[in-house]
Amino acid sequence: MSNKQNLLTNIPTSIPNEIFETIISTPNIKIERIISKGHKSEPDFWYDQDKSEWIMIVKGEARLQFEDKSIYLTPGDYLNIAAHQKHRVDWMTPEEETIWLTVFY
Amino acid sequence: MSNKQNLLTNIPTSIPNEIFETIISTPNIKIERIISKGHKSEPDFWYDQDKSEWIMIVKGEARLQFEDKSIYLTPGDYLNIAAHQKHRVDWMTPEEETIWLTVFY
Repeated sequence: MSNKQNLLTNIPTSIPNEIFETIISTPNIKIERIISKGHKSEPDFWYDQDKSEWIMIVKGEARLQFEDKSIYLTPGDYLNIAAHQKHRVDWMTPEEETIWLTVFY
Repeated sequence: MSNKQNLLTNIPTSIPNEIFETIISTPNIKIERIISKGHKSEPDFWYDQDKSEWIMIVKGEARLQFEDKSIYLTPGDYLNIAAHQKHRVDWMTPEEETIWLTVFY
């Protein structure tokens, strides 16, 4: 058994690029922590993923853009993104780190 | 696409029994929210599960007992429990709800 870890700790003081940490990885799923601070997708960039992705914001604030709407997310908010559903990160708060929990499945 | 939901809201005022809510369910994974308040496993009961389980405490406090140790968990703490690794809930705070996020895989 692994020992406990904490999703809210071990945050670097400087986050020039988003940090992707794999928590669990099997052929069927990947659980990841993403640490961001004010990052957003390039203007014309859209994620178009082969896997479904369940995301939750654990800390911070973000706005995800879809082709038909934008969704503002605060801690505890979660969302399921179907495979190939195009999306991008429109905005994240510059005031603090935004910590994401994602499950690809 | 599903609309956003929040893991910390829609908590009943009375929780006589633990509440298990399925968030995502496919043949490969199940993501669940568990809402508890001061519940614990029966004295001789041990979970012995066919699937691996990744758990995180989102709110509250709990102590999980394994055959060789106990682990105290507070918000953000997470743990991977291998399939058939026996465990039980030894204690949960009676002071507030404990909200668990679990991924069976």
